[in-house]
Amino acid sequence: LAGRAPAEGRKVDIAGIYPPVTTPFTATAEVDYGKLEQNLRKLGTVPFRGFVVQGSNGEFPFLTSIERLEVVSRIRQAMPKDKLLLAGSGCESTQATVEMTLSMAQVGADAALVVTPCYYRGRMTSAALIHHYTKVADLSPIPIVLYNVPANTGLDLPVDAVVTLSQHPNIVGIKESGGDVTRMGLIIHKTKKQDFQVLAGSAGFLLASYAIGAVGGICALANVLGAQVCQLERLCLTGQWEDAQVLQHRLIEPNTAVTRRFGIPGLKKTMDWFGYYGGPCRAPLRDLSPDEEEKLRLDFTSNGWL
Amino acid sequence: LAGRAPAEGRKVDIAGIYPPVTTPFTATAEVDYGKLEQNLRKLGTVPFRGFVVQGSNGEFPFLTSIERLEVVSRIRQAMPKDKLLLAGSGCESTQATVEMTLSMAQVGADAALVVTPCYYRGRMTSAALIHHYTKVADLSPIPIVLYNVPANTGLDLPVDAVVTLSQHPNIVGIKESGGDVTRMGLIIHKTKKQDFQVLAGSAGFLLASYAIGAVGGICALANVLGAQVCQLERLCLTGQWEDAQVLQHRLIEPNTAVTRRFGIPGLKKTMDWFGYYGGPCRAPLRDLSPDEEEKLRLDFTSNGWL
Amino acid sequence: LAGRAPAEGRKVDIAGIYPPVTTPFTATAEVDYGKLEQNLRKLGTVPFRGFVVQGSNGEFPFLTSIERLEVVSRIRQAMPKDKLLLAGSGCESTQATVEMTLSMAQVGADAALVVTPCYYRGRMTSAALIHHYTKVADLSPIPIVLYNVPANTGLDLPVDAVVTLSQHPNIVGIKESGGDVTRMGLIIHKTKKQDFQVLAGSAGFLLASYAIGAVGGICALANVLGAQVCQLERLCLTGQWEDAQVLQHRLIEPNTAVTRRFGIPGLKKTMDWFGYYGGPCRAPLRDLSPDEEEKLRLDFTSNGWL
Amino acid sequence: LAGRAPAEGRKVDIAGIYPPVTTPFTATAEVDYGKLEQNLRKLGTVPFRGFVVQGSNGEFPFLTSIERLEVVSRIRQAMPKDKLLLAGSGCESTQATVEMTLSMAQVGADAALVVTPCYYRGRMTSAALIHHYTKVADLSPIPIVLYNVPANTGLDLPVDAVVTLSQHPNIVGIKESGGDVTRMGLIIHKTKKQDFQVLAGSAGFLLASYAIGAVGGICALANVLGAQVCQLERLCLTGQWEDAQVLQHRLIEPNTAVTRRFGIPGLKKTMDWFGYYGGPCRAPLRDLSPDEEEKLRLDFTSNGWL
Repeated sequence: LAGRAPAEGRKVDIAGIYPPVTTPFTATAEVDYGKLEQNLRKLGTVPFRGFVVQGSNGEFPFLTSIERLEVVSRIRQAMPKDKLLLAGSGCESTQATVEMTLSMAQVGADAALVVTPCYYRGRMTSAALIHHYTKVADLSPIPIVLYNVPANTGLDLPVDAVVTLSQHPNIVGIKESGGDVTRMGLIIHKTKKQDFQVLAGSAGFLLASYAIGAVGGICALANVLGAQVCQLERLCLTGQWEDAQVLQHRLIEPNTAVTRRFGIPGLKKTMDWFGYYGGPCRAPLRDLSPDEEEKLRLDFTSNGWL
Repeated sequence: LAGRAPAEGRKVDIAGIYPPVTTPFTATAEVDYGKLEQNLRKLGTVPFRGFVVQGSNGEFPFLTSIERLEVVSRIRQAMPKDKLLLAGSGCESTQATVEMTLSMAQVGADAALVVTPCYYRGRMTSAALIHHYTKVADLSPIPIVLYNVPANTGLDLPVDAVVTLSQHPNIVGIKESGGDVTRMGLIIHKTKKQDFQVLAGSAGFLLASYAIGAVGGICALANVLGAQVCQLERLCLTGQWEDAQVLQHRLIEPNTAVTRRFGIPGLKKTMDWFGYYGGPCRAPLRDLSPDEEEKLRLDFTSNGWL
Repeated sequence: LAGRAPAEGRKVDIAGIYPPVTTPFTATAEVDYGKLEQNLRKLGTVPFRGFVVQGSNGEFPFLTSIERLEVVSRIRQAMPKDKLLLAGSGCESTQATVEMTLSMAQVGADAALVVTPCYYRGRMTSAALIHHYTKVADLSPIPIVLYNVPANTGLDLPVDAVVTLSQHPNIVGIKESGGDVTRMGLIIHKTKKQDFQVLAGSAGFLLASYAIGAVGGICALANVLGAQVCQLERLCLTGQWEDAQVLQHRLIEPNTAVTRRFGIPGLKKTMDWFGYYGGPCRAPLRDLSPDEEEKLRLDFTSNGWL
Repeated sequence: LAGRAPAEGRKVDIAGIYPPVTTPFTATAEVDYGKLEQNLRKLGTVPFRGFVVQGSNGEFPFLTSIERLEVVSRIRQAMPKDKLLLAGSGCESTQATVEMTLSMAQVGADAALVVTPCYYRGRMTSAALIHHYTKVADLSPIPIVLYNVPANTGLDLPVDAVVTLSQHPNIVGIKESGGDVTRMGLIIHKTKKQDFQVLAGSAGFLLASYAIGAVGGICALANVLGAQVCQLERLCLTGQWEDAQVLQHRLIEPNTAVTRRFGIPGLKKTMDWFGYYGGPCRAPLRDLSPDEEEKLRLDFTSNGWL
C-alpha cells in the first residue's frame, strides 16, 4: 500500500500534486478542527495524489507537538483512503525529529517530510546534514522526503548530500522549493539509479520541473486553484506542452502572491475567496492590509482566476 | 532588586558582561546538570554582571520546554545571588513566547532575552515584530531584552522597530549580535530618552561598542576568557583605550573561532581546554574534525592565550 | 535581413543558439586575432543562429574600447554571412553605452547586447534602468537585447522594468543568465503582445527555458559542445522532450564547470581540449591550478564528453 | 615630503580625514572644471589631510580615461600644496590599472587608491587579488592604498590577502568601506609590524574605527560637514570620547543619507544646500525625487545640521 516500504526494494511512489494544507484557527487562535475537516472535504474532490500536512504553510513552528499530531490525525481520518498523507516532522534537533517522525507514523502519516534544521546554519555542513537525515531515516517506520526551502531556512541542502542520501533505502525523494531548475536537473541526473523522486515545491516552476524530470509538486497554490494545478500536471504528463505553457504562465503571479509576496496571510485570504476557510494566522503573522489585499486580488483577477 | 521593574519608572540596569552559558550534555546527549553546576561554580568567580541562559550558545532549539526551564532553574540556584540571570525565552509564535517568558520568570529569571521569530522572515515586517514584542512585554512580569542575531535568524530587527519598542516601559535593551556599529550607534542615538541599553552580542566588537555607547556585552568568548573580557570592559569604562585596544585585538581571532568559524562545537572544545566542561553538542551539531581542532587551537595560541 | 529593423513593425527574430565567443590572448596578453579567426572557422561549422561577441565570456571589461571594436570587426569578417552578430556594448554610463552601441553598429553588429550598469547598484532602480535603456534604444541604429546577469552585476533587472522596456520598438529581447525560470516565465507572459524574445543565458537551464517559452540561448558551453547544445535546441523545438531531458542532464555539470565553478579560465582550458584555442586570460583572472583542472576534466569525462 | 616613498623604508603617513571629491557636471553632463575648482577652494579651508579624487563618489566609472586624469590634474593645481592627493586608479584589468596608476602619478597624485576588480568576482580569489595588487604596487611610482568597498563591488578583499599585501613596501594602507570593525581590528592586529594604515571608508563608523586603531577616514560626508568630521577626528585623537560619541551619533543619519540611502545624487543635492556646487550626476544616476529630497533634508535637520 501507499507509504509502506516495499518488499522488493523499490521505493514508494510519491508522484503527483499535493496541497500543503493550512491550519485553520479560530478568532482566538485555537486550532479549528471543524474548519479543517470542512476544507479537507472540499480538497478531497480534487484529483490530488495526497496532502502535505505541517509543511511551511501549515504554520507548524507555531503549533505545539500535541497540536501537530492532532492535526495530522484529524486529516488522516477526514481524507480519502486512497490518498497519501505526507507529514512534516522536522525539528531542530535530530532526536526530536526522530521522535516526531515516529509519532507522525503512529497517527497515520504515509511518509515524513523533513525540513533541514537551520538555526545553526553556519555549521550545517554536508556531513552534519547527511548524519541528521541518515539517523532519522534509519529509525523511521515510514519513508522520508527531504525538504529544501531556502527562503525559510536560509540554507541549501548541498547537492552532494542529496546524492548521498538518495542511496538510503528509506529516503524516497526531495521537495525542492528553491526554484533552481539547474540544481533540480542535476539532482535528478545524479540520483537516476536510486529511484529517487523530486517534487517541485511551488507552482511557479512546475512545468519546468516536469520538463526536467520531476514527478510532481507540493504547491501552496493548490489550496485554492487545485484543479488547475492538477490540470497543469496532466498537460505535462501527456506532452501537451503548448497548452501547459499557457496555463503555467497564468499561474505564476497568483502563485507568487500566495507564497513569497504575501505569505500564508495571502494564501488564507485567497482561500476565503475560493470557498475554503482561510481565517487568521497565529501571531506574529499578521493579516494583510487593505492595500495588500487589493494587490493580492489583482494578481488573481488579472490572470482571469477571479 | 536586580531584575524587578522599578517603582519610579527607571528601567532595570543590565550593564556589564555576561557569558551565554552552554548546556553540557552527557555522552548519550542527556543534559548533564552536575557539569552545569560545576561550570557555574567556576564562572561564578569571574566578575560578570550575570549569566545568559538559553541564548544561541545554550543550544536552546535542541532542548524541550521542560529542559529549558530546568536548566534555568538549576543555574538560578547554583549562581551567586547578586548576579543577574537573563533567560532566552524566544519561540516562533507570540503565544509560546509569552508562555515561555512567564515560565522563565517563575523559575527565577531576572529578565528575558527574546530572539526575533524568523521562520517566516519574509513576513516579519516592522509592524509584525513590534506587535510581537509589545505583546510579550505587556504580559511579562520581568523586563524584556530584544535579541537581534542575523547570523542565526537571517533577519535584522529594523532600527525603526527597535526605536518604537524602546518606549515600552518593560523593554529595557537589546543584544546586538550583528556587529554593525553604525547601526548600534544609531539605535543608541535614537533611544537616548528611553533609558534603553545596548549590549554587544560578541567580544569581537566589544571595545567599539563601548566607544559608541553600549553598556556591556553578552560574549560567547567569556565562557573561556571571562576574566579577560571583563578586563576589557574595565579598560573601556576607565578610559584606558590604548590598553583596551591591545587586548581587544588579541581577542578577535579567538572570538571568531568560538562563534562564526567553529560555532558551539568550537566553544565547547575550548571550554575543555580551559578547565570547564564542554563536552559534545546535540545532533545535528557535530564534533570538530582534528583539522578544525588544530586551527581552533592556533587561534588561541597565536594570540597568547594557550 | 537579419539585424535590420523591420519596416512593418515586427521585431527582428533572434531565436536560436549562440556561443558567447571568448577573446584569445597571446602569452603576452595581446589579443590574438589569428587564433580568433581560427576559432571562428571551427565554430562556423556548428548550426548556430549567430555569435555573441563581448559578452561576459569575452572578457570585455579587460579590453580597451578600440580592442572591443576591433574584435567585433574581425569576427564580422570571419563569420558566415547568414549568421547574426550580437555585440556587447554595455558600459557604466548611459552616454558611453550609447556611443559604444553606435560604434558596434558601424563595425557590423546586427544587434547590441547591453548589460545592466551596476557599480552604483544601490541606485539602479527600475526608473533609472528604464531611463538608461530607453536612451540607448532610442539612439541605436541596431536592435537592443537587454542583458541580466546577476552573478556578475549583483543586480536583477526588475521584471516591471523589463515589461516596460519590451514596449520599445527597438528593444527586441533579453538574455536572462540568472536561471530563475519563474521569472523568465513571468517575463514571457507579461510581454506576450510585444514580440519580445527571451534567451536563456546558460546551457544549464536551456531545456526548462524552452519549455517555458524562451526562443534560444547564449551558452558559454556552446564554445566547446556547440553541436550538442544545438541538438538540445532541436530536440526541444521538435517536442522530443525525453531525449532532450537525457541530453540536458548530461550538460549540467560541464556547463557549471565552465561558468560558475571555474569561470572563463575553465572555459578556455576546455576549449584547448576540444580543438579550439583557449589560451590564457588577462589578469587578474588566473589559470586553473592542476587540482582545479582535474576537477574540470572530471565534470566532462563523468558525463561522457571526454 | 608627503606622498614620496621614504628613504629609510618607513611608509608614507596617510593619517587624517579626506573628502572623496565629487565630479561636478554641467546641465549637459560635461565635466565642469570651474565648479570643481570653486568647490576645491571652499574645501581647502577645512583642516583635511588631503583629498581623494576618483573614489566611488567621483563617479569614476562614468568618466573617460582622459577625464579621469584631467580632473586629478586640475585638483592638484587647485588644492593647497601641503595636502595629500589620493587618486583612484582602479580598473578591471591589471594592465589597465598599472597604466592608470602611472598616469595618475604623472598628473600629480601622491598615492593611488585601487579598488578591487569585481566583474568576475566569482574568480577573485585571494591569490588572484594578491597577484593583481602586487603587480600594480611593483610598477607604481607612488604608494598604493587598497580599497575595499563591498557595497559597490559585491566582494570583500579577504583578510589574509590584506595581511600578505601589507608586507609590500609600496602598499601603505587600506580604505575599508564595509563598516565591519571586527574585520578592521583584525587587519590592524595582524599588520602591526608592517606600518600599515587603515582608513575608515565612511563617517558612520569613524569613532569606532579610531577606537580600534584606524588612523583616519575617507568620508563622503566630509564634502558637506567637513569641519565636523575633522572635529570628530580631533576629539578621538585627544581622548575626548564622550564628546566624540555625541558628535558621532549626530553624524550617522546624515552620513547614511549621502551614502547608502540616497547615494551620490543625495550627496550632490546636499552640497547645493551647504554652499558647494553639487549639480546633476551622469546617467544612469538620476536626480532625487521631491519625496527623497524631503527625507534627505530631514536626516540633516533632525540632527541639527540644517
